[in-house]
Amino acid sequence: MSGFPRPPLGPDARAAAFPLGGIGTGTVSIGARGDLRDWELQNRPAKGTRLPFSFFAIRSARPGREAVTKVLEGPLTGPHEGDQGYDAGRLAGLPRLATSRMRGEYPLLFVDFTDPEVGVDVTLTAFTPLIPLDVDASGVPGAVLRYTVHNPTDERVDVTIAGSLANQVGITGWNVFHFPEYAGSPRNTWFEEPSLRGIEFANDLSADDLRHGTVVLATTDASTSAKPQWLSGFWQDGVQVFWDDLRADGRLDAETVFSLDEPPYPSWFTKLRVGSLAISHPLAPGESRDFTFLLTWHFPNRPRAWQGNIGLDNTNAGEVVRNHYATRFGSAVEVARHLVDTPGLEAGTRAFHRALFESSLPAEVVDAVSATLVALRSNTCFRLADGRFAAWEGSFDHSGSCEGTCTHVWNYAQAAAYLFPALERDARRTEFTRETRPDGRMNFRANSVFGNAAWDFHPAVDGQLGAIVRLYREWRFSGDDELLRDCWPGLRRALEFAFTEWDGDGDGVLDSKQHNTYDIEFFGPNSLANSMFLAALHAGARLADHLGETATAARWRSAADTGRARVDELLFNGEYYDQRLDDVDERRYQYGTGCLSDQVFGQLLAHLAGLGYVLPADHVRSAVAAVHRHNFRRDLSAHHSVQRTYALGGESGLVLCSWPRGGRPRIPFVYSDEVWTGIEYQVAAHLAYEGLVDEALELVRAVRARHDGYRRNPWNEAECGNHYARSLASWGVLVALTGADYHAPSGSLSFTPRLGPDLSAPFTTGTGWGVLRVSATGAELELLGGELALDELRVAHPLLGPLATGPVRLHPGQPLTLTATDHDRLEVSR
Amino acid sequence: MSGFPRPPLGPDARAAAFPLGGIGTGTVSIGARGDLRDWELQNRPAKGTRLPFSFFAIRSARPGREAVTKVLEGPLTGPHEGDQGYDAGRLAGLPRLATSRMRGEYPLLFVDFTDPEVGVDVTLTAFTPLIPLDVDASGVPGAVLRYTVHNPTDERVDVTIAGSLANQVGITGWNVFHFPEYAGSPRNTWFEEPSLRGIEFANDLSADDLRHGTVVLATTDASTSAKPQWLSGFWQDGVQVFWDDLRADGRLDAETVFSLDEPPYPSWFTKLRVGSLAISHPLAPGESRDFTFLLTWHFPNRPRAWQGNIGLDNTNAGEVVRNHYATRFGSAVEVARHLVDTPGLEAGTRAFHRALFESSLPAEVVDAVSATLVALRSNTCFRLADGRFAAWEGSFDHSGSCEGTCTHVWNYAQAAAYLFPALERDARRTEFTRETRPDGRMNFRANSVFGNAAWDFHPAVDGQLGAIVRLYREWRFSGDDELLRDCWPGLRRALEFAFTEWDGDGDGVLDSKQHNTYDIEFFGPNSLANSMFLAALHAGARLADHLGETATAARWRSAADTGRARVDELLFNGEYYDQRLDDVDERRYQYGTGCLSDQVFGQLLAHLAGLGYVLPADHVRSAVAAVHRHNFRRDLSAHHSVQRTYALGGESGLVLCSWPRGGRPRIPFVYSDEVWTGIEYQVAAHLAYEGLVDEALELVRAVRARHDGYRRNPWNEAECGNHYARSLASWGVLVALTGADYHAPSGSLSFTPRLGPDLSAPFTTGTGWGVLRVSATGAELELLGGELALDELRVAHPLLGPLATGPVRLHPGQPLTLTATDHDRLEVSR
Repeated sequence: MSGFPRPPLGPDARAAAFPLGGIGTGTVSIGARGDLRDWELQNRPAKGTRLPFSFFAIRSARPGREAVTKVLEGPLTGPHEGDQGYDAGRLAGLPRLATSRMRGEYPLLFVDFTDPEVGVDVTLTAFTPLIPLDVDASGVPGAVLRYTVHNPTDERVDVTIAGSLANQVGITGWNVFHFPEYAGSPRNTWFEEPSLRGIEFANDLSADDLRHGTVVLATTDASTSAKPQWLSGFWQDGVQVFWDDLRADGRLDAETVFSLDEPPYPSWFTKLRVGSLAISHPLAPGESRDFTFLLTWHFPNRPRAWQGNIGLDNTNAGEVVRNHYATRFGSAVEVARHLVDTPGLEAGTRAFHRALFESSLPAEVVDAVSATLVALRSNTCFRLADGRFAAWEGSFDHSGSCEGTCTHVWNYAQAAAYLFPALERDARRTEFTRETRPDGRMNFRANSVFGNAAWDFHPAVDGQLGAIVRLYREWRFSGDDELLRDCWPGLRRALEFAFTEWDGDGDGVLDSKQHNTYDIEFFGPNSLANSMFLAALHAGARLADHLGETATAARWRSAADTGRARVDELLFNGEYYDQRLDDVDERRYQYGTGCLSDQVFGQLLAHLAGLGYVLPADHVRSAVAAVHRHNFRRDLSAHHSVQRTYALGGESGLVLCSWPRGGRPRIPFVYSDEVWTGIEYQVAAHLAYEGLVDEALELVRAVRARHDGYRRNPWNEAECGNHYARSLASWGVLVALTGADYHAPSGSLSFTPRLGPDLSAPFTTGTGWGVLRVSATGAELELLGGELALDELRVAHPLLGPLATGPVRLHPGQPLTLTATDHDRLEVSR
Repeated sequence: MSGFPRPPLGPDARAAAFPLGGIGTGTVSIGARGDLRDWELQNRPAKGTRLPFSFFAIRSARPGREAVTKVLEGPLTGPHEGDQGYDAGRLAGLPRLATSRMRGEYPLLFVDFTDPEVGVDVTLTAFTPLIPLDVDASGVPGAVLRYTVHNPTDERVDVTIAGSLANQVGITGWNVFHFPEYAGSPRNTWFEEPSLRGIEFANDLSADDLRHGTVVLATTDASTSAKPQWLSGFWQDGVQVFWDDLRADGRLDAETVFSLDEPPYPSWFTKLRVGSLAISHPLAPGESRDFTFLLTWHFPNRPRAWQGNIGLDNTNAGEVVRNHYATRFGSAVEVARHLVDTPGLEAGTRAFHRALFESSLPAEVVDAVSATLVALRSNTCFRLADGRFAAWEGSFDHSGSCEGTCTHVWNYAQAAAYLFPALERDARRTEFTRETRPDGRMNFRANSVFGNAAWDFHPAVDGQLGAIVRLYREWRFSGDDELLRDCWPGLRRALEFAFTEWDGDGDGVLDSKQHNTYDIEFFGPNSLANSMFLAALHAGARLADHLGETATAARWRSAADTGRARVDELLFNGEYYDQRLDDVDERRYQYGTGCLSDQVFGQLLAHLAGLGYVLPADHVRSAVAAVHRHNFRRDLSAHHSVQRTYALGGESGLVLCSWPRGGRPRIPFVYSDEVWTGIEYQVAAHLAYEGLVDEALELVRAVRARHDGYRRNPWNEAECGNHYARSLASWGVLVALTGADYHAPSGSLSFTPRLGPDLSAPFTTGTGWGVLRVSATGAELELLGGELALDELRVAHPLLGPLATGPVRLHPGQPLTLTATDHDRLEVSR
């Protein structure tokens, strides 16, 4: 098992697929060999989709030697199986480069290629812009693929890099020969502008067809040649002529005929249209040069319905809604122009990358928080033309998994809240203004985003109450009073609902039928529901305070105080909190005396939202320590689970529940023996808050070691679907380790580093983001994006004690330094 | 790259899948870990299909220790990806045995399991009966899975082995959670007879439903317990209760209720029905004991049409035809009884296995000829109720590939001709009595087997003329004059057709538009078509002789003599035979001056059919040597192929064509740069006939090294589809190496060993089969099955010269010895 930082991945890291694409745009991935794979641009998952003849190639010519032309990928390492071997579209029979090494540092990917015959060294840098707080900048449907070629020889080398792409617009399916079939008529068109040239892949489908769209392969480079449309034919004429053309002189010629076959063509004549764009440059001895390609896409249309597996009402499915990006761009060409015209996109992306990857955070934490961001940019999430954010729980290989921005799954996610808080604010608005019924029951799956009928099912205790804490988190991070006012009536109903629905005996402890994220109902008092309830009461009270609803605030605070005592007395067993049932087997799917990994999840949300302890601190710490002690397995070989399996023999992981004191039910809750990365991160963040940093890091390492590129994809943590939203809990680990706490209404930002004394780590606030640096002599805050005006800045320095300053206004590029002298300026805390 | 014999495969040999099943029955495979995979029982391919909860488990209990229960499979080695991890049906979260080693010696599979915790050693032996010449014995829809458990300890060990199986009858598809959905109502039923007991998996679908069928998991063992139907439920109740039941005491209890959920059940309530059968025995210290399971199936119905990708007429597709095995068995229970009641099935199978695997043939040859037999027992081949044999070219993952028992692909196959000659005789009957038109054009894809309209396409020069040579082969091997008389009119028309259709200028050399196995047309004189023509002329003349049609015989023989001289003069370039075209690029898909691997394929068929040289021997030998020299690549890294890829960088293989003297067309024939195992075997057999044995073995090793279980499945050589028929050419290598030649009409059998002096190898004739053993002092023939009466037996002893005897009648178990003294009895050759 490799350590961290992760070593580069070899070409046999078959599980590795680094997705390119923005928020709400879909993705295409690059595999460990530098190969294009998993084309998922068309508003739904499509894992495993490979486009034929879609690849990059390199030709290098040195004086006096035969030119060398190869597919610009690492070697195919096998297994080599297929019912027709590798079909022709894979071009497995062409030479490839000798070695490839993939270094994925999301959002930047690097792949290094070497080959003695090719003679030059090549590094691919690929990315889609990602800039904290800027959803639009991070939501571009396209990517930059930059091949940096270095000539280490003492001779001139003439280099061509050619990108080829099959037209994917209108694909309806795949024939038995693994070639695509199409609706409409795909066509490839060359376009050329002063600062951009390339091939537009389109189709004559109508603009409101769900498959309508465009894809562009382009460059800003002026030294190009192209074959915008290969020869069409029954056989491989097109690719043979392309390859021979490229090998011959490194320059591509446009074909002068459509096909070598005479018309008329049969109805089943291929509609496959492949086009190639080549960039050529001579490289002097020692020279390095970039060969930059832009790959952009534009698939504007979605059905106006989830059409998911849960089966929410799909009445409007026949209508079309548009992606938000389609309101910004009219075509893939416009996207490409935007990438060319907006250099700040790359600069901001690189700044964010540096903030993370040049941080002093443990490498496994950087690996985790960066890689899991992919979930936000996968087909798991999307934005509609009206700006609405919506998401699945995850992505099945070929469809969304579990629709409706599920409150009890998204409950765990922290990345969006801290990096793209507008998305989470929008989700809260949906939940409280549209999905909370008059009686306070919140539909935990939102169907209002499509205007279809509300979902009718049990309310989810954890999701509903967690949404209240999260609304507080969003308001606190943004100071968005309009959001709060809009949501307040719903929040009030949703919180009151807990008393009537889930507190069967009115003693302030939730104890009736409680549907939850394990897709079953808990009965009787349990600390998952009640820790969430206590956190929600505190959050609600704080918001009531702000709105001047003092009676309500007092009542909820009082309920929290009462509940805290009762819950603690009822459920704390001296080591951890459990579920109290007379007969754990009276009903199925309970846990009873078990040690539940999520047992104080409500407390973690409270910590993140700055609510403090909602249960006694010593018991909370004992409980999370018990979770680590009992539920983390360094080797799962002896574990018996008949459930889904995300970690297995020889691997480490945190199980959802264990019964260290006996009492395992005959049939415990359905996921009890599983290992979920989202819960591992939830617990890791909480362990860090409780000062158990080594234990926290052990969990993070376990997750990321399982996702090593060989066994699983580092950029895909699956649960019920790929790119599962719960994995976004990972960002909470970073927040906990830095102890970052931003309170917009009061303009205060504070840090309580739990690593150090030296620390360098990114931070975000509602308006700006940057890097915190702590050294033995003080602390420094550098803003890298946005703006930040603070009334108060505090750093709990591990050696120097509390440092504070304020008011301050931070400007990008002008670091603010706090030294021990700032100690004097410490004010009394709010 | 591993040598031969192949070392056992470890659990990470993910490509390895050893199919169980008979001729025309479909298959289920066992993977390298001993896992059940690729359920393809239902009359169509279904690669990758895994049934949930279908596995074997072992429980061992030693005195004073906690019992150990594990899935009886080797460890899961990854990649571990899935959009929901491993779905619950995979049971990846249960412990598995520490090691597994797969030794596949088709038709016998052995998997050795060890595990220190389990304490006992287990070897699985699995097979479906395969007995040469006996199509029915080799066509049983079922398999034996025998777990031999050895107790190496000095304590008693109580062992239970439990097999679990999901009901697969009526499956219509798979939901997003990877669980099956069903038509009808699947049900599991316990049955018990004096010598057989088990679970029948059925469904209430009507008897003529295409999905109708039964599956049985049974045993002859009396010490059983069972849970014929697990609990049904929304979640994993059933498997949890099963696993806990097995762990508790190693005995299974039938469930007393259908489900823990109360009716009524929603329409989407799972129809999954899993059942388990356990065998339990105490093992004394040192004891070994068999735990034998029978797995049988019965899916009688097929649509009365190919419904293939070529698009032959499917008018009768709405009707149902039955598999031949359905005329022998009424249900899977009857199949199981047959296996129990017919001990000769295993005895004959083991005798065949010993004949091959205890032979002195090079291990790579044994590996090749045994493993490729799977094609005959895969879904590539089938038999209809009327006895008709029919086949695809191969099997796509989920449908047949290229329907109609294609004459130009099956042209290469030798295994059926020598092991199950009745199948090939039936194919000839179809070709010549039903598919040869009045004008002599043979439809090279047979649609008559389903009574649908004949296919209308170009005739295939190689397939049509090869069919003539093969009819001669079949007649010669069987002496079946009725077959000959029935086919003669068609043969005569088919051969005369060559003169009118393909000899444009009437010079006796075929030279007009010649469609062929490369799916294109050759133009002009070429030696593929003409060597086949010459072989067909000789075959036709021999048959005409036999029928007393002396004028016809003389005319064809004369044409062969003329043609031989003209072809040789026209096409032999001093090293090999090529294609003569003024401008190789005037038409696409030619080869011109290329060195075609198939250039003297007709000569190979002539050798196999005992026709002697149809072209000058020295030129033939030069040509096949040139094929090896120019077309065999020890490392394909520098090969540029834009076609399908069956062998790639770092591997060895024989390309279909090369241009050692230049002259490669701009667009050569579409498969020219590919590597096909069927042609590698064709050439290997020919190299052996020409005495180039080292070169022949090098080709065979290359093929089998590529199919090493890690990169590709040893038991699946794919071309246009899995289990591709052309791979059955492999048996020709065995025939060539032994020089076996059986001539039924004259009752003569001779051998010309090309290995030795010591040799032990299987042989077959039309009526009996056995082993030939040659040693320094003589030769010995042992019959192992059937009967054999010979007028003459000859062995060309490598040291002693020709040995001969006769007439003799061989009886199984009574070897016939030929020593040097038999030399005196040598008669003049016919």
